[in-house]
Amino acid sequence: MNFGIWFLLAAGMVFFMQSGFAMVESGFTRSKNAANIIMKNLMDFAFGAVVFVLLGYQILTSSNYVGGVFGIPSFEIFTAFAEFDFADFVFNLVFCATAATIISGAVAERTKFSSYMVYSVVISAVIYPVSAGWLWNEAGWLAQLGFVDFAGSSAIHMLGGVAAFIGASVLGPRIGKYQVDKKTGKKISRAIPGHSLVVGALGCFILWFGWYGFNGAAAENLPQLGSIFLTTTLAPAAAAISAMTLTWLKNGHPDVSMTLNGALGGLVGITAGTSNVDALGALIIGFVAGILIVVAVELIDQVLHVDDPVGAVAVHGVCGIWGTLAVGLFAREIPALVDGVQMVENGELVWISDVSGLFYGGGTELLGVQIIGVLSILAWTVITTTILFVVIKKTIGLRASAEDEIRGLDATEHGMESGSYADFLTVFDAPKTTPSVPMNKAVTVSNTSTGTKLTKVTILAKREKFLLLKEAFDQIGITGITVTNVLGYGVQRGHTHTYRGVPLENPLLPKVQVDVVVSRVPVDTLVNAVKNVLYTGNIGDGKIFVYDVENVVKVRTGEEGTAALQDSEKGDS
Amino acid sequence: MNFGIWFLLAAGMVFFMQSGFAMVESGFTRSKNAANIIMKNLMDFAFGAVVFVLLGYQILTSSNYVGGVFGIPSFEIFTAFAEFDFADFVFNLVFCATAATIISGAVAERTKFSSYMVYSVVISAVIYPVSAGWLWNEAGWLAQLGFVDFAGSSAIHMLGGVAAFIGASVLGPRIGKYQVDKKTGKKISRAIPGHSLVVGALGCFILWFGWYGFNGAAAENLPQLGSIFLTTTLAPAAAAISAMTLTWLKNGHPDVSMTLNGALGGLVGITAGTSNVDALGALIIGFVAGILIVVAVELIDQVLHVDDPVGAVAVHGVCGIWGTLAVGLFAREIPALVDGVQMVENGELVWISDVSGLFYGGGTELLGVQIIGVLSILAWTVITTTILFVVIKKTIGLRASAEDEIRGLDATEHGMESGSYADFLTVFDAPKTTPSVPMNKAVTVSNTSTGTKLTKVTILAKREKFLLLKEAFDQIGITGITVTNVLGYGVQRGHTHTYRGVPLENPLLPKVQVDVVVSRVPVDTLVNAVKNVLYTGNIGDGKIFVYDVENVVKVRTGEEGTAALQDSEKGDS
Amino acid sequence: MNFGIWFLLAAGMVFFMQSGFAMVESGFTRSKNAANIIMKNLMDFAFGAVVFVLLGYQILTSSNYVGGVFGIPSFEIFTAFAEFDFADFVFNLVFCATAATIISGAVAERTKFSSYMVYSVVISAVIYPVSAGWLWNEAGWLAQLGFVDFAGSSAIHMLGGVAAFIGASVLGPRIGKYQVDKKTGKKISRAIPGHSLVVGALGCFILWFGWYGFNGAAAENLPQLGSIFLTTTLAPAAAAISAMTLTWLKNGHPDVSMTLNGALGGLVGITAGTSNVDALGALIIGFVAGILIVVAVELIDQVLHVDDPVGAVAVHGVCGIWGTLAVGLFAREIPALVDGVQMVENGELVWISDVSGLFYGGGTELLGVQIIGVLSILAWTVITTTILFVVIKKTIGLRASAEDEIRGLDATEHGMESGSYADFLTVFDAPKTTPSVPMNKAVTVSNTSTGTKLTKVTILAKREKFLLLKEAFDQIGITGITVTNVLGYGVQRGHTHTYRGVPLENPLLPKVQVDVVVSRVPVDTLVNAVKNVLYTGNIGDGKIFVYDVENVVKVRTGEEGTAALQDSEKGDS
Repeated sequence: MNFGIWFLLAAGMVFFMQSGFAMVESGFTRSKNAANIIMKNLMDFAFGAVVFVLLGYQILTSSNYVGGVFGIPSFEIFTAFAEFDFADFVFNLVFCATAATIISGAVAERTKFSSYMVYSVVISAVIYPVSAGWLWNEAGWLAQLGFVDFAGSSAIHMLGGVAAFIGASVLGPRIGKYQVDKKTGKKISRAIPGHSLVVGALGCFILWFGWYGFNGAAAENLPQLGSIFLTTTLAPAAAAISAMTLTWLKNGHPDVSMTLNGALGGLVGITAGTSNVDALGALIIGFVAGILIVVAVELIDQVLHVDDPVGAVAVHGVCGIWGTLAVGLFAREIPALVDGVQMVENGELVWISDVSGLFYGGGTELLGVQIIGVLSILAWTVITTTILFVVIKKTIGLRASAEDEIRGLDATEHGMESGSYADFLTVFDAPKTTPSVPMNKAVTVSNTSTGTKLTKVTILAKREKFLLLKEAFDQIGITGITVTNVLGYGVQRGHTHTYRGVPLENPLLPKVQVDVVVSRVPVDTLVNAVKNVLYTGNIGDGKIFVYDVENVVKVRTGEEGTAALQDSEKGDS
Repeated sequence: MNFGIWFLLAAGMVFFMQSGFAMVESGFTRSKNAANIIMKNLMDFAFGAVVFVLLGYQILTSSNYVGGVFGIPSFEIFTAFAEFDFADFVFNLVFCATAATIISGAVAERTKFSSYMVYSVVISAVIYPVSAGWLWNEAGWLAQLGFVDFAGSSAIHMLGGVAAFIGASVLGPRIGKYQVDKKTGKKISRAIPGHSLVVGALGCFILWFGWYGFNGAAAENLPQLGSIFLTTTLAPAAAAISAMTLTWLKNGHPDVSMTLNGALGGLVGITAGTSNVDALGALIIGFVAGILIVVAVELIDQVLHVDDPVGAVAVHGVCGIWGTLAVGLFAREIPALVDGVQMVENGELVWISDVSGLFYGGGTELLGVQIIGVLSILAWTVITTTILFVVIKKTIGLRASAEDEIRGLDATEHGMESGSYADFLTVFDAPKTTPSVPMNKAVTVSNTSTGTKLTKVTILAKREKFLLLKEAFDQIGITGITVTNVLGYGVQRGHTHTYRGVPLENPLLPKVQVDVVVSRVPVDTLVNAVKNVLYTGNIGDGKIFVYDVENVVKVRTGEEGTAALQDSEKGDS
Repeated sequence: MNFGIWFLLAAGMVFFMQSGFAMVESGFTRSKNAANIIMKNLMDFAFGAVVFVLLGYQILTSSNYVGGVFGIPSFEIFTAFAEFDFADFVFNLVFCATAATIISGAVAERTKFSSYMVYSVVISAVIYPVSAGWLWNEAGWLAQLGFVDFAGSSAIHMLGGVAAFIGASVLGPRIGKYQVDKKTGKKISRAIPGHSLVVGALGCFILWFGWYGFNGAAAENLPQLGSIFLTTTLAPAAAAISAMTLTWLKNGHPDVSMTLNGALGGLVGITAGTSNVDALGALIIGFVAGILIVVAVELIDQVLHVDDPVGAVAVHGVCGIWGTLAVGLFAREIPALVDGVQMVENGELVWISDVSGLFYGGGTELLGVQIIGVLSILAWTVITTTILFVVIKKTIGLRASAEDEIRGLDATEHGMESGSYADFLTVFDAPKTTPSVPMNKAVTVSNTSTGTKLTKVTILAKREKFLLLKEAFDQIGITGITVTNVLGYGVQRGHTHTYRGVPLENPLLPKVQVDVVVSRVPVDTLVNAVKNVLYTGNIGDGKIFVYDVENVVKVRTGEEGTAALQDSEKGDS
């Protein structure tokens, strides 16, 4: 009963890892794809939940498990709801969703949203449940062999990481990621930094926190849960240290994103053996995982030229393999103790771990089983996901168009400029009303456009005036302008801002700068129109600057001078 | 005992939902109001805790409950602290805080901070506790009727959502939200996108995670808690799918913010019946909730013209009503089982749910009670919050001034430009010291200002030099400048940056561009002053460009030429 | 058993607080140091875990505790792993990591990364374990005296906060933080706002959530845990209210960052007495803590002139002292009750608190012990951390170079421009390929550079074209350009974006503006090169503007005109 609540709560923590993945993946990629990545992480869970209840869970937990390799689905969740084990379903679902979501990082920034949904559904409904059943269904052939993968280094992470590798390979790299060096003829990798390490790091911390639930959910007694918390703490710590140190030695500075990947690699690495190794084993497994991350990320990128923007293949695939094999090396017998005395429950001795690996006197037997397990799940994943991605590619298409990719999937798939900095692009929102103090007095401006002279007019105003300006431009026939966020500094008047009790000096006030180049529209007309909308009689109404322009060229048509402006000023002449 | 810890922990998770609300609401609104929204979410909890301990909790849980409708407050928490049920208080407090905080999203970006605090306090102290007592105080009249609202679709979410609707209506829309089409005379809604979907999505994930605590806190046995986790997972998943699909069909792309709202709507929808419906019921309730979100958001915005920036009315109000009524349709008898056999505790059979709705053979009885419950809480909320908001509006005022609203509440209420991108506005911080290598040699500049000629001087420098520049301007009498964040590209020297082991090519270095237009201040003077502060003798000291200006107009006074510059250059001539 | 799971889970929540610290500290500082702060928070936990397992934990929990002041380390975790109490280790580790990480905020933005790691390791390995053992090792002398610090107001927070004060003092303030007023000769504090209050606020909420685990982990029965949740809720609520109110009265507006600090101060304040005070005591302790925050932040900054960017000294140091002393004032006897009757476990009466402070009839005895405890831990911390920081300063150096500090530690320590807005600096990534439609027809441009005339050419193009442009510049010998993110507005064509079902009008499209000033490179050559790369024949190919420039000055050399451009245009003439 007791562990039943923990079992559910831990499942909740694994659900929370979805937001960790979403933050890691959006932080490590460009802001123009941030909303798209969020959406993929949300929807693979949503679709995954539905198809897992309809099919995947039935396959995974079937009591009619044929030949140890495939469970015949029943539909007890609907037909025998009252007898259904709800908790077990939720537990299995959140793990399944993790497997599916791992892939999204590796194929980020170039995958069509609809195709993403299709392969995500297939993985949750069939591919993951089949191989997970091999080890987690009592009747599965790997379970029968004695394969140890406590929380899923292989079943979940390696499967996800390998599928990520296949997906990224079939998709091809992001545009601009690799280029051929003209001299050597070699392919060169180019860095495409993510947009916010703060967001990515938050995601890593959330994942680490959730991992205590991930690794600990299936614990059956308290000493075991304590041991799991111990190893789940030490392995990522060691991995962060080794990854950081290696990048420092190689590149001259501790690489932040690689260190964060390192910590995640340590978590993946300890997942299989979390309940079977001791503190020293956990430290070693983690340390090696951190090294593997740096080596694998560079190998995959610079040698194999497979473009994985967030390092999912190295973190989940490579460290998943390592972690599963490491059980065969570091597993040791550990009795569960109470007050230093071995625990007995229902008359039986309780063990945290009762298997031994190569380094703890267990010989190569366990290691052999672990190798068989890794190879079989690897083969299953490679074959099924290759078929899956190739079929999608040949039918509905896997990849966004080059144009969409360059523009950013947020704009092309979801109709917004950027999920992360949306405000920066459309901040000039404000009342679209006539100014409160209309100013109709005549204005003379010394410079008069002749219709052939080119003049640039630069307007500096409060940002909130932008919409009014644009409306005024519409009325006098100006339809092409350039807008820049600038900061204006002027003599300070009015009340002072303070920050933490200290006056904020030099407030640079946000202003908008609007540049217009006119020829047929008289400068007078333009200046008057601008004055009309900006004038309130108060300080801060803004300024207008007039400059001479020597020439304008319109690239598409090659037109120059006045002709080049014909679609940006309709003018009235 | 066992469930006692869960009860408290779940309360902690519900507290954590406060940050989910804060992130959703700040992400879905503009960055100029981000700090204000954070502050409202923090302070409604803080004030709520204090007034709830002083009054609200006493009303809600009173053992002296008059006529089933109102609890006479006692003050046991202070007078009989030792006997006080601390856990129950914390549990009730965090739910109360949720009810109060729901409103803040709908009235965001235009509500006075002080008025917000006032209504928030009244809701936590009186309005919520009274109606919540009807169903959650054993002596409440709805409890006596058999009204089912397990975790508060009505008592919390509908109350919050309806109060949000009343508040947004009384406040009126944000400036610029609606405009009258000149041709048709119809009111047209304008989109005002939020500033960061990543922040908003993080908030949604936090809310969903916290909801396992929200719905599950009051569970009394493990099968029940498992069932709650199941329905709390399936309903939002189904809702996200239906909301996304509908926006895709209607608008041609899957709308991210609406899908996130959809998931939240599914969570609200399942809250009443979380412990009374099965997997299929949860999927249907969620699916309908997702549809309702899209329909209701558009109805409220485009037909009713009530401006709810984050969709709180649709999510909490509309789906709260739906979820409560849905119990009357989908509730089914579910025995709690252990190993397939019905549980017995203390000699009594244990049920997860022992009521049935219309679709499960229960007839219309439960549905009738649910309708009565919804209508009564609805009426209570509409009447009391209308009085509350109108009284505040007529006395201390509910709405920020138009000027404050346009400028942004972060600036006007809290003395900072933006809670989200503060750095972008004041990044030019650096040593305000004399340059380490003073340069005093005479400098000749070919162009000499005559005092009537207008000249624009553009300076490109490292950002950290900005304060020095500004100080130099002060000394020579220039007080009006324009500052732009630009990126400089030059031949690369020194060590190379790497990202994930790959050299970062083309580092565009952050620079500041300062534009000054002078007339009376001689260009020579200005150029020399700038050289003095920028000069170090090292590469990257910057450049100064000089341009001719044809004219300048000062909008407020209509002055032109030199006269227009009189408050931006005091000059020395 | 029951509380065993909670004990571990609470440790997991305390781990999660690491991300709270990371968010608070990066949000409250400038974006140019965001990645550095993330890295410090991650790595002090990673190194802390390793050295704590190797040494610190052995000192703290040693059964061979000499004279009540120092534990002789054993190495049971490795030698007697099977008997080792894993849960207790994890629990102690996460608390130790909290103590170490507190300091990072106060020394942010100017501490060398390597030195940070060194002192962090020493604190985790020795300084914290020694004094924490005094009260939490059964044999510790403060434990023997009856010192009450339930969850570590002194042992963790005061130690961290005081070490932060010492560290910040030895380091000195950030460049530009204080300046001497020329008239009065007084040192004046300048505000250096953080870069994102949204991120900082998220961190505060995460910390508050985690604090339920921090304060509650060691609870032994349910009434006690309930009481802890109660006080952990009320104190920060009261503190937020008092801090906000005081800033409002003093500065004219409710200061957001100070209020967030206030809430944290309330949490620190209640940490010592969380299980020993009642609701009223918690409210008073919190209220005073909020006042102390505002007073202490200003005192430390404006009077002592110690530069603590995030307020760590006030929050953890000052409120840690206050909280510990407050136990001596507000502690009261509280029996643990079940159904109003005092609990009996194993034949013994169970108490939440069995000590009384000054205001509850306990006289000054407890207060005296609390004072002794505070003074002794204070002395230990001041002495050891002063030695630590001074030794580091004299040997490997504590502080980043002035140049690195001004440039930002993200760039100088980790090779990236900013951990928070990375994308803004390098967003111009795109295909580095030849344009799909090469344009080779001859182009004539009316203006021809003579080699002495200075001309500015401004190019407006889609952002994704930037890399192509830069490559073209390379080929014609232009190596110095200025790049600005601008927004272009033109007549709208193609499909319309919608946001929440409403059409998004006026999409301001992100464009890049590139400014080049040429003299020797003919304008024709430049314009043709630009046309070649931008031309596709589609709408939106961009425009080129040509302006006259009167003069250019290169600051480093003092060169003017064409000569000033020699390193930004190699030209072909």
